[in-house]
Amino acid sequence: MTEQAHGGNRYDCFITQDFSVNTSPMGLPDYVREVLQQAVCGDDTLWEWYPDPDCSRLREALSVYHSVPKEHIVCGNGACELIWAAVRAIAKEGAVTAVLPVPSFSEYERALLSVGAGIRYERLREEQGFALTEAVLERLTPEVDLLFLCNPNNPVGDLIRPGLLDRVLEHCRKNKITVILDECFRELTAEEGEGDGTRWETEIRRLLDVSWVSAYPNLILLKAFTKLYAIPGIRLGYCICNSVETARRLQEQLPCWNVSNLAQLAGLTALDDKKSIDYISQTRALICTERKFLETSLKKLGMRVLPGNANFLCFYAGYPLREELLCRGILIRDCTGFDGLGRGWYRIAVRTRQENESILEEIKRLTKGR
Amino acid sequence: MTEQAHGGNRYDCFITQDFSVNTSPMGLPDYVREVLQQAVCGDDTLWEWYPDPDCSRLREALSVYHSVPKEHIVCGNGACELIWAAVRAIAKEGAVTAVLPVPSFSEYERALLSVGAGIRYERLREEQGFALTEAVLERLTPEVDLLFLCNPNNPVGDLIRPGLLDRVLEHCRKNKITVILDECFRELTAEEGEGDGTRWETEIRRLLDVSWVSAYPNLILLKAFTKLYAIPGIRLGYCICNSVETARRLQEQLPCWNVSNLAQLAGLTALDDKKSIDYISQTRALICTERKFLETSLKKLGMRVLPGNANFLCFYAGYPLREELLCRGILIRDCTGFDGLGRGWYRIAVRTRQENESILEEIKRLTKGR
Repeated sequence: MTEQAHGGNRYDCFITQDFSVNTSPMGLPDYVREVLQQAVCGDDTLWEWYPDPDCSRLREALSVYHSVPKEHIVCGNGACELIWAAVRAIAKEGAVTAVLPVPSFSEYERALLSVGAGIRYERLREEQGFALTEAVLERLTPEVDLLFLCNPNNPVGDLIRPGLLDRVLEHCRKNKITVILDECFRELTAEEGEGDGTRWETEIRRLLDVSWVSAYPNLILLKAFTKLYAIPGIRLGYCICNSVETARRLQEQLPCWNVSNLAQLAGLTALDDKKSIDYISQTRALICTERKFLETSLKKLGMRVLPGNANFLCFYAGYPLREELLCRGILIRDCTGFDGLGRGWYRIAVRTRQENESILEEIKRLTKGR
Repeated sequence: MTEQAHGGNRYDCFITQDFSVNTSPMGLPDYVREVLQQAVCGDDTLWEWYPDPDCSRLREALSVYHSVPKEHIVCGNGACELIWAAVRAIAKEGAVTAVLPVPSFSEYERALLSVGAGIRYERLREEQGFALTEAVLERLTPEVDLLFLCNPNNPVGDLIRPGLLDRVLEHCRKNKITVILDECFRELTAEEGEGDGTRWETEIRRLLDVSWVSAYPNLILLKAFTKLYAIPGIRLGYCICNSVETARRLQEQLPCWNVSNLAQLAGLTALDDKKSIDYISQTRALICTERKFLETSLKKLGMRVLPGNANFLCFYAGYPLREELLCRGILIRDCTGFDGLGRGWYRIAVRTRQENESILEEIKRLTKGR
């Protein structure tokens, strides 16, 4: 657990701008901040009461929000905890063989290694923009127990083609392969042309309805508040299982009181129907515009930018950009630690126009100076 | 994970007084509350930054506080998470056989069951006040991998006799049996006659020095902020291992960013040397007086009270006391769920004089009315 491993630890450096953390560029919504501050400055309940071990109210709210039964939802101390719980639930049945596309979020591998799982790496290829392809189907043979899918993929930023995702899920259903589908960034993958306010809302409601999960008996859908509401410091993730039985098996792998009072309150507050849809609309509109701006600008500066749909971009600079930006108090994510990417690859978050202009200015200066 | 299982969930009831939760009767210290409120109402760092995955500053402070190397300390999302991490670290080496004295904290059993461990229950006997005895040594045969010890034991409240604890640790060292020694309540076990302010301080400093851990290569000492600083809602525990290697094995079983920013800040603030010693002194003095008062009063009311050293008492009422108190908005801990205790056994926290008098008044009324 070092800064190198995850890139999120800025405590040892002097940082004025953090592009390494890919949370919402809008920051914590005001309507959530207000409630949290009031709770903390009110009575001592938030500290002195044990958390509800069942996250009952939060799960009820999530159930309505995502159109799934409350009993299929499990909450965790960040999505990471649920990755581990899911892997352990499977490992409890016997030795685990997993297919792991790389590059991808490194916590999947850590969780698999923690139970001594056998890992078959599905190496995504640069010439295909590191996108998942049909080739993964050949790896998903009957002796495989588990497949990790990150959609959009981190750090690449691309969504799996819908047709391919369907085929993979169908294939895994037939072969009884559990799929952990990590969609922690899903709401942050906006596309141009989604249109005006009304159409944003329709698209968001379509995204939030995940009742389709129940069609796949081996699917665990992972989601988080961390990215969408910019609260990585609070720790709150959840997963939506296909059945009560799967949810129970995951819950069995979690210590009691795993979700703090502050996290439960933050989640419950964030899910306010109207306010959350407004916030997500604004966030998606901002990301849409700014990702395009950042992508075009980086390309002009000679960077090889991977096509991405999310609130971050992955690109190849070919020189030690991170170190040089760090001297200027700007932190970006070095992708060297991601299996399949090497030196010179970086990930940056899509932020506000002012912030994006500021980092582009620095990169321009550095690139010219070479 | 229900209220019945742990007794800490008060969200479904109308409760005016909670004696089921055995945290410090002094509540969150003012010097900690102030810092937390300032942090929450200041900038957005507490929400928007990822936590330090290494808990570096907190572990440094703990290292000084307990006279142990920083590298031997692992922090968790509550002590529960570390119980699970320790069990999993052992399970990774192969099938686990554990000795589990009962009655005791039920989370040990949950963690063991989550890895399919074989459990040999060491049934503590009522006629011995449910105290651990030399009999446990006979169970600790070479094929045993792990022993759980809770000191003081929860829900009984008694400390293991020092001579016996030494013998057990020595025996486990010889037989290469890992001991998870849960001392989450240790600072709250005050005895009358510890004397005036100066002597309190000497005794507390003696307790806090746990450099003796390194003498036992198979020992994992578990501690928490939850009980001592009355912050169960925040989630913060830690363990002190005998070596860097053991700490590393535990850390490998933990998801990244497992300790929230609020928890790291609370812990770091609480450890202020002078303020924490003052707070612990006052807490111990209060517990000493009030436990005695509560014990004597309960005995007068005909309850069979187990001898205890901690900030809670376990007693036999012989009638459904919990239900009857619940009607009056008072929550106590029903011990039916603890293996080895049956109906009629209860645990109550030692609180302030006013609170204790209030519950005693109710119990008196109920007992007389029968």
